[in-house]
Amino acid sequence: MNYRADRPTAAAQPSETTIDFLTSPDRYRHWKLKVNGDIAELVMDVNENAPLMQGYQLKLNSYDLGVDIELSDALQRLRFEHPGVKVVLLKSGKDKVFCAGANIRMLAAASHVHKVNFCKFTNETRNSMEDSSENTGLKFLCAIRGTAAGGGYELALSCDHIILSDDGSSSVSLPEVPLLAVLPGTGGLTRVTDKRKVRRDRADIFCTVEEGIKGKRAVEWRLVDEVVPNSKFEAAVQSAAAALAAKSDRPAGEKGITLTPLSRDISADRIAYSLVTVDLDRAARRATIKVLGPQDPAPASVADAKALGAQFYSLRVARELDDAIVHLRLNEPEIGTWVFRTEGDADLVCAYDRFLEQNSKDWFIRETLHFWKRVLKRIDVTSRSLVALIESGSCFAGSLAEIAFACDRSYMFAGTVTGGNQSMAHMTLTPLNFGQYPMSNGLTRLETRFLGEPETVQKVKEKIGESLDSSDAELLGLVTESFDEVDWDDEVRIFLEERTSFSPDGLVGLEANLRFAGPETMETKIFGRLTAWQNWIFQRPNAVGADGALKRYGTGLKAEYDIKRV
Amino acid sequence: MNYRADRPTAAAQPSETTIDFLTSPDRYRHWKLKVNGDIAELVMDVNENAPLMQGYQLKLNSYDLGVDIELSDALQRLRFEHPGVKVVLLKSGKDKVFCAGANIRMLAAASHVHKVNFCKFTNETRNSMEDSSENTGLKFLCAIRGTAAGGGYELALSCDHIILSDDGSSSVSLPEVPLLAVLPGTGGLTRVTDKRKVRRDRADIFCTVEEGIKGKRAVEWRLVDEVVPNSKFEAAVQSAAAALAAKSDRPAGEKGITLTPLSRDISADRIAYSLVTVDLDRAARRATIKVLGPQDPAPASVADAKALGAQFYSLRVARELDDAIVHLRLNEPEIGTWVFRTEGDADLVCAYDRFLEQNSKDWFIRETLHFWKRVLKRIDVTSRSLVALIESGSCFAGSLAEIAFACDRSYMFAGTVTGGNQSMAHMTLTPLNFGQYPMSNGLTRLETRFLGEPETVQKVKEKIGESLDSSDAELLGLVTESFDEVDWDDEVRIFLEERTSFSPDGLVGLEANLRFAGPETMETKIFGRLTAWQNWIFQRPNAVGADGALKRYGTGLKAEYDIKRV
Repeated sequence: MNYRADRPTAAAQPSETTIDFLTSPDRYRHWKLKVNGDIAELVMDVNENAPLMQGYQLKLNSYDLGVDIELSDALQRLRFEHPGVKVVLLKSGKDKVFCAGANIRMLAAASHVHKVNFCKFTNETRNSMEDSSENTGLKFLCAIRGTAAGGGYELALSCDHIILSDDGSSSVSLPEVPLLAVLPGTGGLTRVTDKRKVRRDRADIFCTVEEGIKGKRAVEWRLVDEVVPNSKFEAAVQSAAAALAAKSDRPAGEKGITLTPLSRDISADRIAYSLVTVDLDRAARRATIKVLGPQDPAPASVADAKALGAQFYSLRVARELDDAIVHLRLNEPEIGTWVFRTEGDADLVCAYDRFLEQNSKDWFIRETLHFWKRVLKRIDVTSRSLVALIESGSCFAGSLAEIAFACDRSYMFAGTVTGGNQSMAHMTLTPLNFGQYPMSNGLTRLETRFLGEPETVQKVKEKIGESLDSSDAELLGLVTESFDEVDWDDEVRIFLEERTSFSPDGLVGLEANLRFAGPETMETKIFGRLTAWQNWIFQRPNAVGADGALKRYGTGLKAEYDIKRV
Repeated sequence: MNYRADRPTAAAQPSETTIDFLTSPDRYRHWKLKVNGDIAELVMDVNENAPLMQGYQLKLNSYDLGVDIELSDALQRLRFEHPGVKVVLLKSGKDKVFCAGANIRMLAAASHVHKVNFCKFTNETRNSMEDSSENTGLKFLCAIRGTAAGGGYELALSCDHIILSDDGSSSVSLPEVPLLAVLPGTGGLTRVTDKRKVRRDRADIFCTVEEGIKGKRAVEWRLVDEVVPNSKFEAAVQSAAAALAAKSDRPAGEKGITLTPLSRDISADRIAYSLVTVDLDRAARRATIKVLGPQDPAPASVADAKALGAQFYSLRVARELDDAIVHLRLNEPEIGTWVFRTEGDADLVCAYDRFLEQNSKDWFIRETLHFWKRVLKRIDVTSRSLVALIESGSCFAGSLAEIAFACDRSYMFAGTVTGGNQSMAHMTLTPLNFGQYPMSNGLTRLETRFLGEPETVQKVKEKIGESLDSSDAELLGLVTESFDEVDWDDEVRIFLEERTSFSPDGLVGLEANLRFAGPETMETKIFGRLTAWQNWIFQRPNAVGADGALKRYGTGLKAEYDIKRV
C-alpha cells in the first residue's frame, strides 16, 4: 500500500501553534498500521520525543492529542482504504507496557479548554470504533501484554474483545482517582458499568486499586474476556481474530478508496476547503460555515461513485466538515457561535440521498453514510451555539437538512427580497432524515425534536420530497422561526448579539442539556454524566491546583486536598 | 388541626450554625398550609426577613434552604397527617409574584458545598412530589399569578398541572443563563425537555428570554397547561383541582398519622435518635450510622400500626434515618465516609416486611413504603463513600438490606470470633428487595447490581427468606467480600484509611458514575447530566468569580466573562 503524503501546501500550512488534525500513515510518529489479509495490526508505539506541545515526553506509550489524531486517521483509512479488513488488532510496540493512558504532564500543563476538547475528541474516536463494529463490520481485538492503565485500558474497553497476558505482571487498571484525583473520563467509568457490566462494588475496587487487576480475577470480574499465558498468547489472538472476522460482513476483493489529501487553505480569518468554507468574524466571535451542495448529478452507479473515490461528493463534504469542526473546537475557542449556511441545488442533494439510500448495502456507501452520521454527532456535542440560516439559494435538504436539525436555532427567510430575482428559501426532507442518522440518544433528530408529539414525525414524513417553503416549515415545526425581509436582518442580528453577551459556560451547560431530550445511551452518558463530572473535577483545586494531584504527580510530594465533600 | 410543637429540647438543640431540618407547621415562617376537604392549599408567602443565614433578604418570594425545609415538611405532613387530601394547590401569598426562585444573594454568598447540597435537597423535594403523584395519589396543581421565575417555575414544573393567569403580566421564565450565568438546575432544563417535551429550539429561546413567556404562547409551547383570564381564574383552578382529585385514590374518612417530634439528641460527636445513632470520628473523617431493627413483633393489623402512629417502626426508622442523612450532608461536609451498621433481629425485620407487603394497599402502609424508598434514594445520591459492615448481631434483612445494596462496598464477617459466643453474621432477602424500592434509574438495587447477569437476580430471588451466611452471600454476589476474624479488622481499617486518602472530588465523580449503571430516567438525568454541569458552572469564574454574574447581580455592573468556550 502506498500512501500519498498529504502535507498541506505551504499556503495551507497551519501556524505553529495550530493543532492540525490532518495526517497520513507515512507521517505517523506513534502508530504502525500493517494490513495482512482481513486482519490489520494497529501497533501503538509512541515516540516519546514527539509530543504535540512542548514540556513533556510521551513515556510508556502515554498519549496526547497528537497520538489520538493519528489513531483517528488510521481508523478512517481502515474504513475506506481497506474494505477487506474485518478485524483490527490493537497492540503495543513496547515491551512491558500496553499503554499508560493520557500523559499526566500534558494534562497538568494543558488549559481547561484543551483538556476538555482533548477528552471529547478521544471519546469520539473510541465511540467511532464501537460504531464501526456495530454497523460496518469492522471489529476490534485488543491484545494486552504489559500494563494497560487509565486511558490505555479505556482504549481496550472500546474493543469487542480483550485478551490479557497471564504473565504475572500484565494488568488492566483505572488508577485515575487514587493517583491523579481525576476520573477515567474517556468512557472508562461508563463502559465498566454499562458495557462490561462489572458489579458496582467490584468496579469501585477496580477504580481505586492503583496497580490494577490481573490474571483470572480480571476475567471473573468481566474486565477482560480472556487471560492467556504467554506461551499460548499468539494462538489465542489468532483464534479470537478469526472468531471476530467470522462476525464481519466486510467484503473480500474490493479495492479501497484512497483518502487523498484534503484541499484546505487556512488564512487569518478563513478556512477554505473545496465544499466547506469557514469565515471567522473575530470581533463578533462568530464563524460562518458554508457547505456547498453537490455540483454534479449523483453517480449513475456505485462503480461510478467508487471511481470518484475521495472526490465523491458525500465523502468529500463529510471529510471537510469533519476537519472544520475539530479545527474550530481546538483552535478557535473564542468563536462561540457557529452559523451554518448551505448553497446549492436541493434537487441534487435529494438525488444524492436517493443514491445513498438505494446503495446503502454497498460497503463504500455504507461507510460514507455512517461517517456522515458521526460528523453530525460531532456537531451535536460541539460546545458552541449553533444556528442555521436557511435562505434563498440554500440547500438544506435531506442529509444537509440534518445540520439545521442539529442546531440550537434555525431561522428561515420568508418570501423574497423586494425587487430581487432570487427564489424563495426551501427545505426538503428525504427518507434519510427518518432513521439513517440517529443522534447518540438513539433517536433521529426529528424524533428528538418532536418528542412531545410523535404524531408530528409521521406528519412530517408524509412531506418527503416536497419543497417546503418557510410557512410550511414553520407550521410543521421544522424551523425555529421565519422572518421576511423586513425583520430578517434585525432578528438574526439580535439573536447573534444576544448569544455573544451570555456567559460561555452557561451556554455550555444549557446546550448540553437541551440537545439531548429523551433516552440516554452509553454514548450520551459518556458525554453527559461522565464528562460533566470530569469537567467539574478539572476545575477543582484538588486536581488542578498548585498542590493538587495532577500538579504534584511525580514530584514526590503528596497532593493536598480540601477534605470537604460536596 | 392542632400541630404539636416539635422544638427539640434544650439538650437536643442544634448549634446556631447547624442547619436543622426538623420543623412543623406552627413554626413555618414561609408557608401556609390549609386543608379543605380533599384539597389542600399550600401557600408560599416567604418572610423576607427570615433567611436561613445572614446577609440577604428573601424578597419576592425567593427561597433559600430554610424555605425548602418547610416545603419538604409540609409535603410529609400532607402525606401522613392528611390522608384525605387528594390535591395540593400550590399558590403564592404575594401579589404580582408567584416565586422568584432561589435567592441570588444567598447563591452568591454560599459556599460551593452549600450550593450543591441546597440544590440536591430541593431536587429531592420536587422529585418527591412527582413520586407521590405517581404512586400514592397525591396530585399537585400549580396556580400562577404573577411571575414564576427560575426556581419558581421549576417548582411549578414538578406539579401535575400548571395554570397561568392571562393578565398580561403573569409569566413563567428560566432566566438563569442570561441573568446569572448559571443553569436552571433544580430540574428545570430536564423537565422542560423530558417532562413537558418542549421543542428544543423553543426551550432554547425560553431559557434565554429574561422576561419569560406568557399568555397563549406559554400553552402552545407546552410550558403551562392552561392560561386563564383573571375573571375565570378561580373557577379554572377549582375545575382542574376536581379533575386531578378524580385521578387520586387517596381514601376519604381516614384519620391521619401525626408526625410527632423526633427524639433526637445532638452532641459534639454523636447524633442519637431512638433507632438510629450517628457516631462521628472526626479525626478519621468517618460517621458510623447504626440502625436498630424492630424491637417488637410486627403489628397484628393495619389498625394496630395506625394506633402506633409515628412510633410504628417502619415510619419511625425512615424519619430518623432521613433526618440523619440530610443533617450529615449539610452540616458535616468533612465527614467523607459513612459506615452503616445494623443491630437487631433479622426475623423481626422480615416479619415487618411481610406485614408491609401484605398491607401495601392501605394508604398508611403505602406512604410508609414509598417514604422508605425515597430515604434509600437519598442514600444513593449522597456524595459520601458508603460502606456497610455486616457483622454478628446485625439485621441486614429485607428493607434494611437495601442499605447495604446502596453502599459502594459491603463487608461481611465470616465465621465467629474464637472464644466468643456470638452468632454468625447473616443476611436475609424478602420480596421487598425485588421491586418495592426501585432506584432512580427505575431498576431495583439488585437488578442494577447484577446488570451483567440478570439470571443472578432470579437465583437470588429463590433464596428469599433463607438466612444467608457470609459464604452464601459472597457466592451469590450480595456482598463485596467477607473476612474472618484474622483479617476483618485490618481489611476494614485499610479500606477506610485508603478511602480517606483519596481526593474527595475524585470520589464524588467516581461514585456518581458507578452507582447508576443501566437506564437513565428524568430523575437520574437531573442528578447526573444537569447537576454535574451545574456544579461545574458553580466553579467557574464567569458565575462565581468576583466579576462573575452571581456576584455582580444587582450592582449595576455587568459581569465580565472569560469568552472561551470549552
